[in-house]
Amino acid sequence: MTGAGTNHSLAPLTGGPQIILVEPQMGENIGMAARAMANFGLSDMRIVNPRDGWPNERAIVTAANAAHVLERAKIYPDLLSAVADLNAVYATTARERGQMKQVFDADAAVQQVHSRIHGGENVGILFGRERTGLNNDEVAMADAIITFPVDPSNASLNLAQAVLLVGYEWFKQAHGTLPFTVEERSPPAKREAVVSFFTWLEQELDTCGFFPAPEKKPAMIRNLRDILLRLSMTEQDVKTLRGATSILRRGPTSTTNKSEILTDNN
Amino acid sequence: MTGAGTNHSLAPLTGGPQIILVEPQMGENIGMAARAMANFGLSDMRIVNPRDGWPNERAIVTAANAAHVLERAKIYPDLLSAVADLNAVYATTARERGQMKQVFDADAAVQQVHSRIHGGENVGILFGRERTGLNNDEVAMADAIITFPVDPSNASLNLAQAVLLVGYEWFKQAHGTLPFTVEERSPPAKREAVVSFFTWLEQELDTCGFFPAPEKKPAMIRNLRDILLRLSMTEQDVKTLRGATSILRRGPTSTTNKSEILTDNN
Repeated sequence: MTGAGTNHSLAPLTGGPQIILVEPQMGENIGMAARAMANFGLSDMRIVNPRDGWPNERAIVTAANAAHVLERAKIYPDLLSAVADLNAVYATTARERGQMKQVFDADAAVQQVHSRIHGGENVGILFGRERTGLNNDEVAMADAIITFPVDPSNASLNLAQAVLLVGYEWFKQAHGTLPFTVEERSPPAKREAVVSFFTWLEQELDTCGFFPAPEKKPAMIRNLRDILLRLSMTEQDVKTLRGATSILRRGPTSTTNKSEILTDNN
Repeated sequence: MTGAGTNHSLAPLTGGPQIILVEPQMGENIGMAARAMANFGLSDMRIVNPRDGWPNERAIVTAANAAHVLERAKIYPDLLSAVADLNAVYATTARERGQMKQVFDADAAVQQVHSRIHGGENVGILFGRERTGLNNDEVAMADAIITFPVDPSNASLNLAQAVLLVGYEWFKQAHGTLPFTVEERSPPAKREAVVSFFTWLEQELDTCGFFPAPEKKPAMIRNLRDILLRLSMTEQDVKTLRGATSILRRGPTSTTNKSEILTDNN
């Protein structure tokens, strides 16, 4: 993947849940989490008691194009002050905590989060320290748990990856558009053009002796049309295929060189 | 997040599409891609012409618990040999290529991939070089394009993140189970127990003068029951709340100390 798809003239999207990093240890992970947020239109990071203080040079370097997320980030001395103004809090965790909370996958949780935010609530999602995650008292501060479907033999997601998955589900839910879809260079061919091509092709094939016996011809034609119809040809496709088969049929001529044949079809 | 949820006694899941890294540049990214695959039960990595040769020490160090993915990885000199035995190929890209291919998000693409693999096909997904992605000839080798819904002002996902998102959708589609769900410590309370608690509580509140006037009592009781019913109490919840309110009602006694009160409810 590459940054070539980025449009730097657009302002970053804002909104979404508060992404709350609880006592993150490494600046690189804070920076990567900021990048993951920016990829998916999340703008609000809160950081509880970052181990290496704030601002953090390693976080800024790693965040790169997502520096605006770090600039807006709010720092809190403890979890309670970081969630004080929130209406709902979700805790991400990779393991069971013996707490009678509802457990959601990121998809279902983000649907709820989106609906609450749409209803005017301020919602936060907690992400624990790299090494040990959230402790049980921190999980107890949340209304519900978010966990990720993973291979239990390899359940460890790093901090930025967990933020990335929540962000990905958020963008699908809140914005949902792909950066591009198929380029509509040419409209789908009308059936008339397709059948005209088929008829011509079948006649040429007949001329060249493609059909071994007259009684086999109808079935062979049906088979050929089946194959070509699977292409769902555009107008341009029909022209390209007709040009290519036409030139094959003609074969090389004394006045034709290779580059002219190619040019004819591009 | 933390590795504490990992069960090292389980064998890693295998199967899924071939994850094909085309000319990856940094060993760290190959290692992180292997980790992302292992998180989501993908076992088969193919690498086309890795810039720094193979094996790659940085990849092994970064892969950590996903070393088995690197050990199984197959190395190819060019893309054609890497896809030669595949029935279907998808190309991931962040930008439009002017090619008339269908474009899917990871969710829709992985549904197709899963269905093809279930039908016995061997399917590959191409991921391009870190800096420049796949070139147009490489994209042309694919049946369809996978792209990710991202904020267009921050469209750059790194290699391992793109693999992570495909893996995440694969696991949801192919395995789908969360590592844990809510712990069922106590069954949901029967309505009889809930109403018995309400009746007792309302009587005690009446005794203490909670209801200012008899005509207001029914509405206040309904309101109180509304609030408490929202808890969807378990049997244990009813016992805990009844114990706590009961002790509040009694107040401190000369023979009771704080630790006994707490013990009574745990």
